[in-house]
Amino acid sequence: MKTLGSALLMGLLAWNHQAWAAEAITLPVPPLPPGPLHYDTAEGFAIEVKVLARGLDHPWSIAFLPDGSALVTEKNAGAIRRLIDGKLQTESISGVPEVVPGVYSGLLDIALDPDFANQPYIYLSYNKPLPGGLSAVAYARGRWDGHNLIDTQDIYVADVGTASGSRILFGPDGMLYAGLYVDVVQAPSLAPESLKGKLIRLTPEGGVPADNPFIGKEGFRPEIYTYGHRTITGLTLHPTRNEIWATEMGPNGGDEVNLIYPGNNYGWPLVSLGRSYQGPWQSEKFQMDGAVDPLVYWMPSISVSGMTFYDGAVFPLWQGDLFVGGMKYGEIAGTGQLQRIHFNADMQELRRESLLGDLRQRIRDVKQGPDGYLYVLTDEDDGAVLRIEPAP
Amino acid sequence: MKTLGSALLMGLLAWNHQAWAAEAITLPVPPLPPGPLHYDTAEGFAIEVKVLARGLDHPWSIAFLPDGSALVTEKNAGAIRRLIDGKLQTESISGVPEVVPGVYSGLLDIALDPDFANQPYIYLSYNKPLPGGLSAVAYARGRWDGHNLIDTQDIYVADVGTASGSRILFGPDGMLYAGLYVDVVQAPSLAPESLKGKLIRLTPEGGVPADNPFIGKEGFRPEIYTYGHRTITGLTLHPTRNEIWATEMGPNGGDEVNLIYPGNNYGWPLVSLGRSYQGPWQSEKFQMDGAVDPLVYWMPSISVSGMTFYDGAVFPLWQGDLFVGGMKYGEIAGTGQLQRIHFNADMQELRRESLLGDLRQRIRDVKQGPDGYLYVLTDEDDGAVLRIEPAP
Repeated sequence: MKTLGSALLMGLLAWNHQAWAAEAITLPVPPLPPGPLHYDTAEGFAIEVKVLARGLDHPWSIAFLPDGSALVTEKNAGAIRRLIDGKLQTESISGVPEVVPGVYSGLLDIALDPDFANQPYIYLSYNKPLPGGLSAVAYARGRWDGHNLIDTQDIYVADVGTASGSRILFGPDGMLYAGLYVDVVQAPSLAPESLKGKLIRLTPEGGVPADNPFIGKEGFRPEIYTYGHRTITGLTLHPTRNEIWATEMGPNGGDEVNLIYPGNNYGWPLVSLGRSYQGPWQSEKFQMDGAVDPLVYWMPSISVSGMTFYDGAVFPLWQGDLFVGGMKYGEIAGTGQLQRIHFNADMQELRRESLLGDLRQRIRDVKQGPDGYLYVLTDEDDGAVLRIEPAP
Repeated sequence: MKTLGSALLMGLLAWNHQAWAAEAITLPVPPLPPGPLHYDTAEGFAIEVKVLARGLDHPWSIAFLPDGSALVTEKNAGAIRRLIDGKLQTESISGVPEVVPGVYSGLLDIALDPDFANQPYIYLSYNKPLPGGLSAVAYARGRWDGHNLIDTQDIYVADVGTASGSRILFGPDGMLYAGLYVDVVQAPSLAPESLKGKLIRLTPEGGVPADNPFIGKEGFRPEIYTYGHRTITGLTLHPTRNEIWATEMGPNGGDEVNLIYPGNNYGWPLVSLGRSYQGPWQSEKFQMDGAVDPLVYWMPSISVSGMTFYDGAVFPLWQGDLFVGGMKYGEIAGTGQLQRIHFNADMQELRRESLLGDLRQRIRDVKQGPDGYLYVLTDEDDGAVLRIEPAP
């Protein structure tokens, strides 16, 4: 499953990300304990965190099948592993496309067709090797035969020149939304001819829906749904409001949660609530006419990643709360956590709880299982699937 | 030493702070362990935290005498306790004025005269009981006789109508700076006739310096040095830049560190980077022409408190860093911590480290001792003095 791009490509990637990243500084991370772990929470109940699976190679996303089992992507291994009754299966799923593994690339997101009962497709986002040592962000789908993917085919290959991540989500309209990371400081997030720093909207077959907001607008790629993003690291649906919510990773500060309005500008790189990694503010002003303000933001950054609203029955006091993964705090690695955001009836933030911070794991994704528990992925060499349950 | 104001006053205070505070929600706090505690830090060295003293009644501030001993104020007890060779003395210091104890009032800050060798005065900020059950923020000084305060007298009584905290600091100019908290939501921080939400500047005798920036300006109290503050909870001098830095507690988000420029407006309540406790943004815009932007800010809040720059020899890798106390994170009590902020040569933030978060103590003050260690006060019923040392 592992494939290496050319040394040239790797060199270019290393160069890009060196310019992009701050001076590396890391708090030593203790090994993940075997668990289960017990925590008090601010809403007055206790939780137990079980380590369901470990030894995964940088797990990135998790999706649940109708039978209650789950598929977990491993970014670096470029593989999909299955959890049945909470147990990790030894064999990887077959039918996964070849990927370019790397720090910032590999096999990424996974999502089920919204009409999975009739169209049992599984969608993947990944970094696809191209001739000449190049790569592209691509979206593929394969038919689920109950055990593996079959007839996996690309539905869309994004012409972004270097490896760059991408979250995907089916909207309430049945369309496929995909957020394309930027990968350089001078991001073309506002450039209408580039897909970087954009949220795009595709049909499940990878075509351009006829009602996309920029169709017919001079210079704009018709796939574009919203622009001026930095790096959309999470996408989720609000369970009752039919809204798409997106996490966006800021620089040194300025992580955001945005509510997605079609055709809108989210301001990067002209406005941000953060600093550049070298110290100066990213922008003179924190806001700009015509750019949407975030609903939630962080200073310092927690390196926001995957998120989900909780609407299960198992944690009644968490219903309506947003859970957001965090990979590092304050530009110091080794400080991951999970955050819970509690809103009022108008979806305005009332409070924010930091959870699992003692584990210091890079939390890449969080999803609610069909059992009402929360499943948490740690994007580590010894990557794990954690399950949050009420304490017995 | 304990004095109660009238039931009426207490009732008014309770009402004010009920309107002011969010719905109370608290993470259960474990008892402070006996220590010493061992931590790895992000700069690659380990520290040991010793519990030097405990059982203090909400310690609020600490000041070091030339002999290396330290004086610690107890907000609720209205007392000063002395640490000699790191050991808490049983007897309180005598000569302390009577205070109005309460959640938000009592004996607060303590500072030595900048010319202590010749003028051994010790300055206090406190809430002074007034006739009719009223109170005022007051500043007093007493002469240190080697054991106690003698001839303690008020030098200035601020005509703010309810109990409200106040930090004090001697500036590089030898003048006494004092930040007066606001205590209601609709703060008069911009009102030039009110002292609330202001930084004032006094002579060591409590008079108004002739070069104060608003002298002769229509409507302005001549004591005022800067305005438009919410609640200045910390004041410190930059050790080499001759600058006064102030922490300012925001609402739900919008905690700040500000560099103080004479005569300037810091924007509260018209601009803030935070939300009101009920959820809506405090202000439509995050910035305002004519209002100074913070150098550092937090979203969510950590409830910033006392702070100090580190310039000792014991922790070479911390030199130039700012340490800031935090009393709660994200509007959830029981989540105190100490933060370290690392800057570039232009005093622009590069990273931020959270320390002692596992203790969940309300950290009210942090100061560097003459021994180069950091001393940390926990504003708790079982309040403590912690000392941070390099791990042996």
